[in-house]
Amino acid sequence: MPPFDVPEGDPFGPHNLPYGVFSPNGDPGGSAERRVGVRLGDHVLDAGAAARALGSPYAELLAQPTLNPLLAAGRTTWSDVRRALTAWVTVPAHRETLEPHVHPLSEVTLHLPFEVADYVDFYASENHARNVGQIFRPDAADSLTPNWKHLPIGYHGRSGTVVVSGTDVVRPSGQRKAPADTEPVFGPSVRLDIEAEVGFVVGAPSPMGTPVPLSSFRDHVFGLCLLNDWSARDIQAWEYVPLGPFLGKSFATSVSAWITPLDALDSALVAPPARTHPLLPYLDDSAEEPGGYDLRISVAINGHVVSEPPFSTMYWTAAQQLAHMTVNGASLRTGDLYGSGTVSGPSDAERGSLLELTWNGRDPLELPDGKRAFLEDGDEVTLTAWAPGPGGTKVGLGEVRGRIASAVGATEA
Amino acid sequence: MPPFDVPEGDPFGPHNLPYGVFSPNGDPGGSAERRVGVRLGDHVLDAGAAARALGSPYAELLAQPTLNPLLAAGRTTWSDVRRALTAWVTVPAHRETLEPHVHPLSEVTLHLPFEVADYVDFYASENHARNVGQIFRPDAADSLTPNWKHLPIGYHGRSGTVVVSGTDVVRPSGQRKAPADTEPVFGPSVRLDIEAEVGFVVGAPSPMGTPVPLSSFRDHVFGLCLLNDWSARDIQAWEYVPLGPFLGKSFATSVSAWITPLDALDSALVAPPARTHPLLPYLDDSAEEPGGYDLRISVAINGHVVSEPPFSTMYWTAAQQLAHMTVNGASLRTGDLYGSGTVSGPSDAERGSLLELTWNGRDPLELPDGKRAFLEDGDEVTLTAWAPGPGGTKVGLGEVRGRIASAVGATEA
Repeated sequence: MPPFDVPEGDPFGPHNLPYGVFSPNGDPGGSAERRVGVRLGDHVLDAGAAARALGSPYAELLAQPTLNPLLAAGRTTWSDVRRALTAWVTVPAHRETLEPHVHPLSEVTLHLPFEVADYVDFYASENHARNVGQIFRPDAADSLTPNWKHLPIGYHGRSGTVVVSGTDVVRPSGQRKAPADTEPVFGPSVRLDIEAEVGFVVGAPSPMGTPVPLSSFRDHVFGLCLLNDWSARDIQAWEYVPLGPFLGKSFATSVSAWITPLDALDSALVAPPARTHPLLPYLDDSAEEPGGYDLRISVAINGHVVSEPPFSTMYWTAAQQLAHMTVNGASLRTGDLYGSGTVSGPSDAERGSLLELTWNGRDPLELPDGKRAFLEDGDEVTLTAWAPGPGGTKVGLGEVRGRIASAVGATEA
Repeated sequence: MPPFDVPEGDPFGPHNLPYGVFSPNGDPGGSAERRVGVRLGDHVLDAGAAARALGSPYAELLAQPTLNPLLAAGRTTWSDVRRALTAWVTVPAHRETLEPHVHPLSEVTLHLPFEVADYVDFYASENHARNVGQIFRPDAADSLTPNWKHLPIGYHGRSGTVVVSGTDVVRPSGQRKAPADTEPVFGPSVRLDIEAEVGFVVGAPSPMGTPVPLSSFRDHVFGLCLLNDWSARDIQAWEYVPLGPFLGKSFATSVSAWITPLDALDSALVAPPARTHPLLPYLDDSAEEPGGYDLRISVAINGHVVSEPPFSTMYWTAAQQLAHMTVNGASLRTGDLYGSGTVSGPSDAERGSLLELTWNGRDPLELPDGKRAFLEDGDEVTLTAWAPGPGGTKVGLGEVRGRIASAVGATEA
């Protein structure tokens, strides 16, 4: 019987147990009503209430309005809590006690699961970087910039506009200037795009002045989520030289409501692609455990799948990104979030952005409801993903979904 | 008699009253010991304790370990609290009550005065942008990029490494590649630089999807501080194409311990330089009050003044930067900080970076303790500033000071 008898093959079975934050529908949803939840099939377990009911020592850590206290607790506690949760949802003797603390997903509201500290976005897919280079710098000798194979290129984004899956995305307005125009014009973006990414969530902090080596990745990073780095290509193209993307990205970044702990993804670890250039010692992972993750992502527009980007093809791993991000002594804080960069595989149907899928609008997609060069108002984009789990199971990632709402205030701005 | 009889001409007299956060020396300095302070001459008033002693309704807002509750309270409250503080420190009848709550500056430790939400850095000095363009793109037809006169260029930085004045700055390590090198090398930065800037502190938040127009600047921005945007030029040069500065900046950004409320700077308002290009309506400030601030900055290395950048020369104003930053619908949060960009005046002795002062190291500075192309270990950089106040007074800004500590971990990374 549900909720505990999850059907075989369900990607959210007891082998998964991602964390989120929810409030019961009908409640105001303020921090007083929010609590940590763990997903099991199509239900959510109120983890703090369950811990209290079972007299667990983790009750205080879990009866919280965000995941931040759990994130800050560190790797040993992460493993201990996961072991406890696994026992709670699988040992039949606990069922009667837990039943009152399990809610159908349809009866709860999911919130941003953690307070985001700094948000960084990388650019780690070689296929994506080459596609972008060919589109924007067709005359360059190499579609990659000279630094690309030597370091994971990244930049800081706006953490204040990271929103949870399901939040509408208002079409941004801003300046754009087509090459043929003599002056920039202002208005709603006409080249609104997605970037299908994976986000990594930092739990344990690190002090300033102390680089985090590759081997310490799992001590600091708690888990991952799906991430849609919404991008206004026209705003970005005009603004980004010389200091990088700003308003073309800062209007919204969507993350899934569920954070999958890395402990649930050990069966998905894979070696990254062979490195074509020697790496400096702090990035050289040849003696480390495999640092890639075999995550199969799917991108749908209005329910129609347009791409299936394979995360296993990413050139730079999350551990390399963390080592790079801290090698200058930058500290980590609980709640730091970093995106992988757009995930694009080698084939046409594996590209993680409309920029690439339509080759900058030249080849619009044919959807059941019409052609798409870029996103139209009302379009709903959904990213989903799964990874190989233990014993042939699938580990589902939480979806990240967002609908484009019309621009507001454009005429008065 | 001190503390209340501040000498005439003191830039921190009762016409100024900047806010900070302090703890008495000898206390651990944790959040339990931190409290909001207001500077008066060379003393600090414990604002929360003073409010309690006087039965003020602002006691709860001020008896806090950070300025964030005051920042969030909004413009009307900012003015009311300032009016109350002015009365407290100027009306002789209060002296006996307040005396126990005043501490000499030498007996307190100053802390980061607010929790930084997002940190953005702009690039708003035309002199600086032209100097940088000439140094790095000597063959370009125009030393400014085509977008420079149309929008205030900016990018997000790392809020987790914003530190208070007095914090040592560890020399960052990272990758660099000189044009003549075939491969990048790793090691401590050999081109460590400063950027003399002014930081603006957002108090009242704004919701996503709602641009903040020029006219609402004072409803959202509480005050300003001095800011040193430490920069590793060699790391930055190799990493920044195409997504902008990252590790070359993210190791540390120093801010002064005192936040000067904009209400103390009304006498310093000046018109910005004449605009040479027409502006889109959301940036057109021709019908607004003057948006520039006449702040006279001084840059010293080991006590020797090397430059006096005039903030009044900045092309883009803080109000324009705020309007631009939010025109795409990005929200503001209490504690958002944005830097003006390096302040450089038109003359050689007014440049706000060593990059410009030494023309990328070609013309080292002659200091009493030797030549400087870039910073050496042990160098201490101090930014100070003042602005014209009411009735011929000077309004002092809090200094921002930092000493370069040797790189650590470079060999093992």
